[in-house]
Amino acid sequence: MRQAEELRDAVEAYLRSVVFAPELGRLEEALRYSLESGGKRIRPVLCLAVVEAAGGEVEHGLPAAAALELVHTFSLVHDDLPALDDDSERRGRPSSHVAFGDGPALLAGDALLAEAIRLAVTYDDAAIVRELVEATLAMIGGQYRDITDADGDLVELHRLKTGRLFAASIGLGLRVARVADPDQAPWREFGEEIGLLFQVVDDMLDGDGLASRLPTDEVRRLADDAAERARTALDAVSGDTSVLRELADSVAFRTG
Amino acid sequence: MRQAEELRDAVEAYLRSVVFAPELGRLEEALRYSLESGGKRIRPVLCLAVVEAAGGEVEHGLPAAAALELVHTFSLVHDDLPALDDDSERRGRPSSHVAFGDGPALLAGDALLAEAIRLAVTYDDAAIVRELVEATLAMIGGQYRDITDADGDLVELHRLKTGRLFAASIGLGLRVARVADPDQAPWREFGEEIGLLFQVVDDMLDGDGLASRLPTDEVRRLADDAAERARTALDAVSGDTSVLRELADSVAFRTG
Repeated sequence: MRQAEELRDAVEAYLRSVVFAPELGRLEEALRYSLESGGKRIRPVLCLAVVEAAGGEVEHGLPAAAALELVHTFSLVHDDLPALDDDSERRGRPSSHVAFGDGPALLAGDALLAEAIRLAVTYDDAAIVRELVEATLAMIGGQYRDITDADGDLVELHRLKTGRLFAASIGLGLRVARVADPDQAPWREFGEEIGLLFQVVDDMLDGDGLASRLPTDEVRRLADDAAERARTALDAVSGDTSVLRELADSVAFRTG
Repeated sequence: MRQAEELRDAVEAYLRSVVFAPELGRLEEALRYSLESGGKRIRPVLCLAVVEAAGGEVEHGLPAAAALELVHTFSLVHDDLPALDDDSERRGRPSSHVAFGDGPALLAGDALLAEAIRLAVTYDDAAIVRELVEATLAMIGGQYRDITDADGDLVELHRLKTGRLFAASIGLGLRVARVADPDQAPWREFGEEIGLLFQVVDDMLDGDGLASRLPTDEVRRLADDAAERARTALDAVSGDTSVLRELADSVAFRTG
């Protein structure tokens, strides 16, 4: 079993090696800029950890893992645009539209989504593309709610905006490792819970969302309960889930 | 053989019947608004005409045809945004960002691209998704050139921004009808030429692009030559290509 850090290194190396469509020309710089911005790669690492825990080959999972990170990055680039959150910084650097201009950033986001699909379609399994694109649509729907229905159900908003791509990270790993459908349930439950956990902790760190509506101890309990359910889900899984448990802990106790 | 007008009706009916991801919620209105804006549906009609000329079932081609129209519509919605062309009208109506706001229009464009992939992946043929997404990337690269390299090679720009999705309209039709790879060449040549033809005529009608750089008779000759090469390509195709010839004529002689 590779440790989480090794999986992360594999993701980084693979992302650097991805060849983008030559027709993008110099727009490629904007794609690489946003991809190389030092994120935690939690989605692709989760995907690869599932592949390995389920008995698959980590190398075989790399295109799916990278596709997840590209979809995530596409969403960040578009969310940062003036049309949406108008954030001028992302992880301590100028966001894409500040570095390259609004038009190129918009197109870079579009291209990241299209390149994600191109990676996902390298598998001989249409279900991989389907699951990725359905999660993407849920994420877009979540972002739409976020800008139009600020008083809506926050747990549902998180499930759409963040949870579904987390769930797809687990789902794509299962499909790469060819885990039979009837055996996927506990893994997928783990995916749902870790997505919720990630977003609740995010709100705690940012002091917004759920953290602005509920008392601190209640938010902390939401997170603890999700972490507990994530661990329980893994109890029903056969295979070495040590790395997945470690990842769940790192999400639960992260500080940034 | 169905006539072009019948194919167009089939496309319209199918587009109205497409069920979008429920997670999009009310954003669906923005997708439908842009899809129902009365375009000529030239890409999906070309796709279906190829399916039928090559001996396939028109009904089987409808998801691919619709996917092409969704990709085209995604590109229009994003191109109209203030970040790019900042066009407030599209086909005599307020453009998406004027009707719904910049943020929703951005997300609607993203969702149209993702929904196009969802339609393309309903086929048990990864090559359909691959060809669609590669054409999409070329189109994005073309748009990037358009905003960053105004003095560049216009024929190459058109090939990327418009030609590749036209070529994919033919290509997807061939794949739906399961035309063997060695037999695809003349069809694909037709696709290249009709894409070029469409854009040259577009420039003539708008008085920009090639029409602003070359004398009128030279631009007209470019169009005539492309139309002639498109017809010649069809001569090498077995099957009833009458509808495709009619479509080529309607592109060559269109007035709006």
